[in-house]
Amino acid sequence: MMNPLADRVRQALRAVPNYPKPGIIFQDITPLLADAELMAGVVREMAAPYRDAGVSHILGIEARGFIFGSAMAVEMGAGFIPARKPGKLPWETVRETYQLEYGTDALEAHRDACIGGARVLVVDDVLATGGTAVAAGELVRRLGGDLVGWSFLLELGFLPGRKRLTGAPATSIITLN
Amino acid sequence: MMNPLADRVRQALRAVPNYPKPGIIFQDITPLLADAELMAGVVREMAAPYRDAGVSHILGIEARGFIFGSAMAVEMGAGFIPARKPGKLPWETVRETYQLEYGTDALEAHRDACIGGARVLVVDDVLATGGTAVAAGELVRRLGGDLVGWSFLLELGFLPGRKRLTGAPATSIITLN
Repeated sequence: MMNPLADRVRQALRAVPNYPKPGIIFQDITPLLADAELMAGVVREMAAPYRDAGVSHILGIEARGFIFGSAMAVEMGAGFIPARKPGKLPWETVRETYQLEYGTDALEAHRDACIGGARVLVVDDVLATGGTAVAAGELVRRLGGDLVGWSFLLELGFLPGRKRLTGAPATSIITLN
Repeated sequence: MMNPLADRVRQALRAVPNYPKPGIIFQDITPLLADAELMAGVVREMAAPYRDAGVSHILGIEARGFIFGSAMAVEMGAGFIPARKPGKLPWETVRETYQLEYGTDALEAHRDACIGGARVLVVDDVLATGGTAVAAGELVRRLGGDLVGWSFLLELGFLPGRKRLTGAPATSIITLN
Protein backbone atom coordinates (compact mmCIF):
# COMPACT_ATOMS: atom_id res chain seq x y z
CA MET A 1 0.00 0.00 0.00
CA MET A 2 1.52 3.30 -1.11
CA ASN A 3 1.46 6.14 1.35
CA PRO A 4 3.95 8.84 0.38
CA LEU A 5 3.44 10.80 3.62
CA ALA A 6 4.14 7.73 5.78
CA ASP A 7 7.33 7.10 3.77
CA ARG A 8 8.46 10.67 4.32
CA VAL A 9 7.76 10.38 8.05
CA ARG A 10 9.88 7.22 8.23
CA GLN A 11 12.73 8.93 6.42
CA ALA A 12 12.55 12.02 8.62
CA LEU A 13 12.79 10.18 11.94
CA ARG A 14 16.24 10.02 13.52
CA ALA A 15 16.87 6.86 15.57
CA VAL A 16 18.99 7.77 18.61
CA PRO A 17 20.39 4.68 20.36
CA ASN A 18 20.62 4.42 24.16
CA TYR A 19 18.30 7.36 24.91
CA PRO A 20 16.86 7.95 27.47
CA LYS A 21 18.59 4.81 28.79
CA PRO A 22 20.82 1.96 27.55
CA GLY A 23 19.09 -0.42 25.15
CA ILE A 24 16.32 2.00 24.13
CA ILE A 25 16.25 3.39 20.59
CA PHE A 26 14.60 6.80 20.75
CA GLN A 27 12.72 8.08 17.69
CA ASP A 28 13.70 11.73 17.35
CA ILE A 29 10.95 13.69 15.59
CA THR A 30 12.75 17.05 15.41
CA PRO A 31 13.86 16.65 11.75
CA LEU A 32 10.19 16.12 10.85
CA LEU A 33 9.08 19.21 12.80
CA ALA A 34 11.67 21.38 11.06
CA ASP A 35 10.33 20.42 7.61
CA ALA A 36 7.45 22.86 7.07
CA GLU A 37 5.65 20.87 4.38
CA LEU A 38 5.99 17.56 6.20
CA MET A 39 4.87 19.09 9.50
CA ALA A 40 1.73 20.52 7.88
CA GLY A 41 1.04 17.19 6.13
CA VAL A 42 1.39 15.25 9.39
CA VAL A 43 -1.00 17.60 11.21
CA ARG A 44 -3.61 17.14 8.45
CA GLU A 45 -3.13 13.36 8.39
CA MET A 46 -3.35 12.98 12.17
CA ALA A 47 -6.63 14.94 12.09
CA ALA A 48 -8.09 13.19 9.03
CA PRO A 49 -9.75 10.15 10.70
CA TYR A 50 -11.67 12.49 13.05
CA ARG A 51 -12.85 15.20 10.63
CA ASP A 52 -16.46 14.13 10.84
CA ALA A 53 -16.41 13.10 14.50
CA GLY A 54 -17.55 16.45 15.90
CA VAL A 55 -14.34 17.02 17.87
CA SER A 56 -14.75 20.05 20.16
CA HIS A 57 -11.43 19.75 22.04
CA ILE A 58 -7.97 18.28 21.57
CA LEU A 59 -6.25 17.08 24.74
CA GLY A 60 -2.49 17.23 24.11
CA ILE A 61 -0.07 15.34 26.35
CA GLU A 62 2.98 17.27 27.62
CA ALA A 63 5.31 18.04 25.94
CA ARG A 64 5.49 16.66 22.39
CA GLY A 65 1.72 16.14 22.32
CA PHE A 66 1.41 19.92 22.62
CA ILE A 67 3.30 20.34 19.35
CA PHE A 68 0.93 18.23 17.23
CA GLY A 69 -2.19 18.79 19.33
CA SER A 70 -2.34 22.57 19.23
CA ALA A 71 -1.76 22.73 15.47
CA MET A 72 -4.47 20.07 15.01
CA ALA A 73 -6.85 22.07 17.23
CA VAL A 74 -6.49 25.18 15.05
CA GLU A 75 -6.73 23.05 11.89
CA MET A 76 -9.92 21.32 13.11
CA GLY A 77 -11.57 24.36 14.74
CA ALA A 78 -11.32 22.78 18.18
CA GLY A 79 -10.17 24.08 21.55
CA PHE A 80 -6.96 22.85 23.16
CA ILE A 81 -6.52 21.26 26.60
CA PRO A 82 -2.97 20.78 27.94
CA ALA A 83 -2.53 17.59 30.01
CA ARG A 84 0.52 18.20 32.17
CA LYS A 85 2.84 16.56 34.66
CA PRO A 86 1.81 17.13 38.31
CA GLY A 87 2.34 20.63 39.69
CA LYS A 88 2.65 22.39 36.33
CA LEU A 89 -0.90 23.73 36.11
CA PRO A 90 -1.69 26.76 38.29
CA TRP A 91 -5.35 26.17 39.15
CA GLU A 92 -7.50 23.29 40.49
CA THR A 93 -6.80 20.04 38.70
CA VAL A 94 -8.09 16.56 38.11
CA ARG A 95 -5.29 14.00 38.36
CA GLU A 96 -4.94 10.55 36.85
CA THR A 97 -2.13 8.35 38.19
CA TYR A 98 -0.68 5.50 36.16
CA GLN A 99 1.81 2.70 36.58
CA LEU A 100 5.36 2.83 35.24
CA GLU A 101 7.81 -0.08 35.09
CA TYR A 102 9.10 1.12 38.47
CA GLY A 103 6.78 3.45 40.37
CA THR A 104 4.00 5.70 39.16
CA ASP A 105 3.49 8.91 37.23
CA ALA A 106 0.46 11.16 36.73
CA LEU A 107 -1.23 13.53 34.32
CA GLU A 108 -3.30 16.56 35.31
CA ALA A 109 -5.76 18.87 33.61
CA HIS A 110 -7.68 21.85 35.00
CA ARG A 111 -10.99 20.62 36.36
CA ASP A 112 -12.94 23.12 34.20
CA ALA A 113 -10.98 22.17 31.06
CA CYS A 114 -14.08 21.04 29.26
CA ILE A 115 -17.80 21.05 29.85
CA GLY A 116 -20.18 18.12 29.72
CA GLY A 117 -20.84 17.02 26.15
CA ALA A 118 -17.36 18.01 24.99
CA ARG A 119 -16.00 15.60 22.39
CA VAL A 120 -12.31 15.18 23.07
CA LEU A 121 -9.53 13.72 20.92
CA VAL A 122 -6.32 12.73 22.75
CA VAL A 123 -3.07 13.54 20.88
CA ASP A 124 0.51 12.48 21.48
CA ASP A 125 3.56 11.82 19.34
CA VAL A 126 4.21 8.16 20.21
CA LEU A 127 2.11 5.23 21.40
CA ALA A 128 4.48 2.92 23.31
CA THR A 129 3.31 0.93 26.35
CA GLY A 130 0.05 2.90 26.42
CA GLY A 131 0.22 3.93 30.09
CA THR A 132 0.07 7.66 29.40
CA ALA A 133 -2.55 7.25 26.68
CA VAL A 134 -4.87 5.21 28.91
CA ALA A 135 -4.47 7.79 31.68
CA ALA A 136 -5.27 10.61 29.24
CA GLY A 137 -8.44 8.83 28.14
CA GLU A 138 -9.47 8.37 31.76
CA LEU A 139 -8.75 12.05 32.41
CA VAL A 140 -11.17 12.99 29.59
CA ARG A 141 -13.88 10.87 31.21
CA ARG A 142 -13.26 12.42 34.62
CA LEU A 143 -13.50 15.91 33.11
CA GLY A 144 -16.97 14.99 31.87
CA GLY A 145 -16.01 14.77 28.20
CA ASP A 146 -16.66 12.04 25.63
CA LEU A 147 -13.50 10.37 24.36
CA VAL A 148 -13.55 10.48 20.54
CA GLY A 149 -10.26 8.62 20.11
CA TRP A 150 -6.48 8.75 20.26
CA SER A 151 -4.32 10.14 17.44
CA PHE A 152 -0.56 9.48 17.34
CA LEU A 153 2.20 10.23 14.89
CA LEU A 154 3.68 6.76 15.33
CA GLU A 155 3.19 3.60 17.30
CA LEU A 156 5.69 0.98 18.42
CA GLY A 157 4.15 -2.29 17.22
CA PHE A 158 6.41 -4.43 19.41
CA LEU A 159 4.87 -2.99 22.58
CA PRO A 160 1.36 -3.75 23.85
CA GLY A 161 0.07 -0.15 23.87
CA ARG A 162 -2.61 -0.56 21.24
CA LYS A 163 -4.24 -3.51 23.01
CA ARG A 164 -4.78 -1.32 26.07
CA LEU A 165 -6.71 1.39 24.20
CA THR A 166 -10.33 0.34 24.18
CA GLY A 167 -13.73 1.97 23.75
CA ALA A 168 -12.64 4.43 21.05
CA PRO A 169 -10.45 4.30 17.92
CA ALA A 170 -6.68 4.76 18.06
CA THR A 171 -4.86 5.83 14.91
CA SER A 172 -1.29 6.57 13.87
CA ILE A 173 0.49 7.48 10.64
CA ILE A 174 3.17 4.82 10.91
CA THR A 175 3.90 1.67 12.94
CA LEU A 176 7.51 0.76 13.75
CA ASN A 177 8.17 -2.94 14.27
CA MET B 1 -7.82 52.05 20.40
CA MET B 2 -10.34 49.27 19.79
CA ASN B 3 -9.01 45.77 19.47
CA PRO B 4 -11.75 43.21 20.01
CA LEU B 5 -9.32 40.27 20.03
CA ALA B 6 -7.15 41.89 22.71
CA ASP B 7 -10.26 42.48 24.83
CA ARG B 8 -11.27 38.85 24.49
CA VAL B 9 -7.77 37.73 25.47
CA ARG B 10 -7.91 39.90 28.60
CA GLN B 11 -11.28 38.45 29.54
CA ALA B 12 -10.15 34.87 28.95
CA LEU B 13 -7.07 35.05 31.20
CA ARG B 14 -7.48 33.68 34.71
CA ALA B 15 -5.35 35.45 37.32
CA VAL B 16 -4.13 32.87 39.86
CA PRO B 17 -2.66 34.50 42.99
CA ASN B 18 0.42 33.11 44.74
CA TYR B 19 1.49 30.79 41.92
CA PRO B 20 4.18 29.54 41.47
CA LYS B 21 5.16 31.33 44.72
CA PRO B 22 3.71 33.78 47.23
CA GLY B 23 3.22 37.29 45.87
CA ILE B 24 3.19 36.27 42.20
CA ILE B 25 -0.04 36.56 40.19
CA PHE B 26 0.09 33.90 37.49
CA GLN B 27 -1.77 34.52 34.23
CA ASP B 28 -3.44 31.21 33.38
CA ILE B 29 -3.99 30.91 29.64
CA THR B 30 -5.87 27.60 29.66
CA PRO B 31 -9.38 29.18 29.32
CA LEU B 32 -8.11 30.93 26.18
CA LEU B 33 -6.69 27.70 24.73
CA ALA B 34 -9.98 25.87 25.28
CA ASP B 35 -11.91 28.48 23.25
CA ALA B 36 -11.50 27.28 19.66
CA GLU B 37 -12.29 30.57 17.97
CA LEU B 38 -10.15 32.64 20.33
CA MET B 39 -7.24 30.20 20.04
CA ALA B 40 -7.33 30.41 16.22
CA GLY B 41 -7.59 34.21 16.37
CA VAL B 42 -4.61 34.47 18.72
CA VAL B 43 -2.47 32.26 16.48
CA ARG B 44 -3.29 34.44 13.46
CA GLU B 45 -2.66 37.66 15.38
CA MET B 46 0.66 36.49 16.83
CA ALA B 47 1.77 35.60 13.28
CA ALA B 48 0.43 38.77 11.62
CA PRO B 49 3.40 41.15 12.16
CA TYR B 50 5.75 38.61 10.51
CA ARG B 51 3.67 37.53 7.49
CA ASP B 52 5.96 39.28 5.02
CA ALA B 53 9.20 38.64 6.90
CA GLY B 54 10.10 35.41 5.11
CA VAL B 55 9.95 33.31 8.28
CA SER B 56 11.31 29.81 7.57
CA HIS B 57 11.24 28.46 11.16
CA ILE B 58 9.46 29.09 14.44
CA LEU B 59 11.49 28.40 17.58
CA GLY B 60 9.02 27.60 20.38
CA ILE B 61 10.09 27.73 24.02
CA GLU B 62 9.10 24.77 26.22
CA ALA B 63 6.36 24.19 27.16
CA ARG B 64 3.68 26.84 26.52
CA GLY B 65 5.66 28.27 23.61
CA PHE B 66 5.13 24.90 21.90
CA ILE B 67 1.37 25.43 22.01
CA PHE B 68 1.36 28.73 20.13
CA GLY B 69 4.53 28.13 18.13
CA SER B 70 3.59 24.91 16.39
CA ALA B 71 0.15 26.18 15.37
CA MET B 72 1.82 29.37 14.06
CA ALA B 73 4.36 27.29 12.13
CA VAL B 74 1.62 25.39 10.29
CA GLU B 75 -0.35 28.62 9.76
CA MET B 76 2.72 30.41 8.31
CA GLY B 77 4.14 27.48 6.32
CA ALA B 78 7.25 27.38 8.50
CA GLY B 79 9.13 24.54 10.21
CA PHE B 80 9.11 24.18 13.99
CA ILE B 81 12.12 24.03 16.33
CA PRO B 82 11.53 23.02 19.97
CA ALA B 83 13.80 24.84 22.45
CA ARG B 84 13.86 22.67 25.56
CA LYS B 85 15.15 22.50 29.09
CA PRO B 86 18.55 20.74 29.43
CA GLY B 87 18.55 16.96 28.95
CA LYS B 88 15.18 16.75 27.17
CA LEU B 89 16.49 16.54 23.60
CA PRO B 90 17.94 13.19 22.53
CA TRP B 91 20.66 14.25 20.09
CA GLU B 92 23.57 16.74 20.03
CA THR B 93 22.53 20.15 21.29
CA VAL B 94 23.58 23.76 21.43
CA ARG B 95 22.98 25.22 24.90
CA GLU B 96 22.40 28.78 26.03
CA THR B 97 22.63 29.45 29.77
CA TYR B 98 20.90 32.43 31.36
CA GLN B 99 20.68 34.09 34.73
CA LEU B 100 17.74 33.67 37.09
CA GLU B 101 17.08 35.66 40.25
CA TYR B 102 18.88 32.89 42.14
CA GLY B 103 21.07 30.62 40.00
CA THR B 104 20.95 29.84 36.29
CA ASP B 105 18.82 27.95 33.80
CA ALA B 106 19.41 26.95 30.18
CA LEU B 107 17.69 26.29 26.87
CA GLU B 108 18.82 23.74 24.30
CA ALA B 109 18.11 23.03 20.64
CA HIS B 110 19.50 20.32 18.36
CA ARG B 111 22.61 21.65 16.67
CA ASP B 112 21.20 20.83 13.19
CA ALA B 113 17.84 22.47 14.00
CA CYS B 114 18.21 24.99 11.22
CA ILE B 115 20.61 25.64 8.38
CA GLY B 116 22.43 28.86 7.58
CA GLY B 117 20.09 31.45 6.11
CA ALA B 118 17.12 30.21 8.13
CA ARG B 119 14.88 33.07 9.24
CA VAL B 120 13.66 32.26 12.72
CA LEU B 121 10.84 33.74 14.80
CA VAL B 122 10.95 33.05 18.55
CA VAL B 123 7.56 32.31 20.16
CA ASP B 124 6.49 32.12 23.80
CA ASP B 125 3.33 32.82 25.75
CA VAL B 126 4.61 35.50 28.14
CA LEU B 127 7.39 38.10 28.08
CA ALA B 128 8.33 38.74 31.74
CA THR B 129 11.92 39.51 32.77
CA GLY B 130 13.15 38.56 29.30
CA GLY B 131 15.82 36.09 30.42
CA THR B 132 14.42 33.15 28.49
CA ALA B 133 13.62 35.27 25.44
CA VAL B 134 17.13 36.72 25.24
CA ALA B 135 18.58 33.20 25.57
CA ALA B 136 16.28 31.94 22.80
CA GLY B 137 17.43 34.75 20.50
CA GLU B 138 21.04 33.91 21.24
CA LEU B 139 20.30 30.23 20.55
CA VAL B 140 18.98 31.18 17.09
CA ARG B 141 22.24 33.03 16.36
CA ARG B 142 24.34 30.11 17.53
CA LEU B 143 22.35 27.73 15.31
CA GLY B 144 23.32 29.89 12.33
CA GLY B 145 19.87 31.39 11.82
CA ASP B 146 18.77 35.00 11.42
CA LEU B 147 16.53 36.21 14.23
CA VAL B 148 13.38 37.72 12.67
CA GLY B 149 11.79 38.72 15.99
CA TRP B 150 9.97 37.60 19.11
CA SER B 151 6.20 37.03 19.22
CA PHE B 152 4.36 36.72 22.56
CA LEU B 153 0.74 36.39 23.58
CA LEU B 154 1.21 38.89 26.41
CA GLU B 155 3.86 40.96 28.08
CA LEU B 156 4.16 42.17 31.64
CA GLY B 157 4.74 45.90 31.27
CA PHE B 158 5.93 46.33 34.87
CA LEU B 159 8.98 44.12 34.23
CA PRO B 160 12.01 45.12 32.14
CA GLY B 161 11.79 42.26 29.60
CA ARG B 162 11.09 44.38 26.54
CA LYS B 163 14.12 46.62 27.10
CA ARG B 164 16.38 43.60 26.93
CA LEU B 165 15.15 42.46 23.48
CA THR B 166 17.25 44.29 20.93
CA GLY B 167 18.21 43.87 17.28
CA ALA B 168 14.82 42.58 16.13
CA PRO B 169 11.16 43.45 16.78
CA ALA B 170 9.25 42.06 19.76
CA THR B 171 5.45 41.98 19.60
CA SER B 172 2.59 40.89 21.83
CA ILE B 173 -1.20 40.99 21.67
CA ILE B 174 -1.70 42.56 25.09
CA THR B 175 0.38 44.28 27.78
CA LEU B 176 -0.55 43.86 31.45
CA ASN B 177 0.44 46.74 33.74
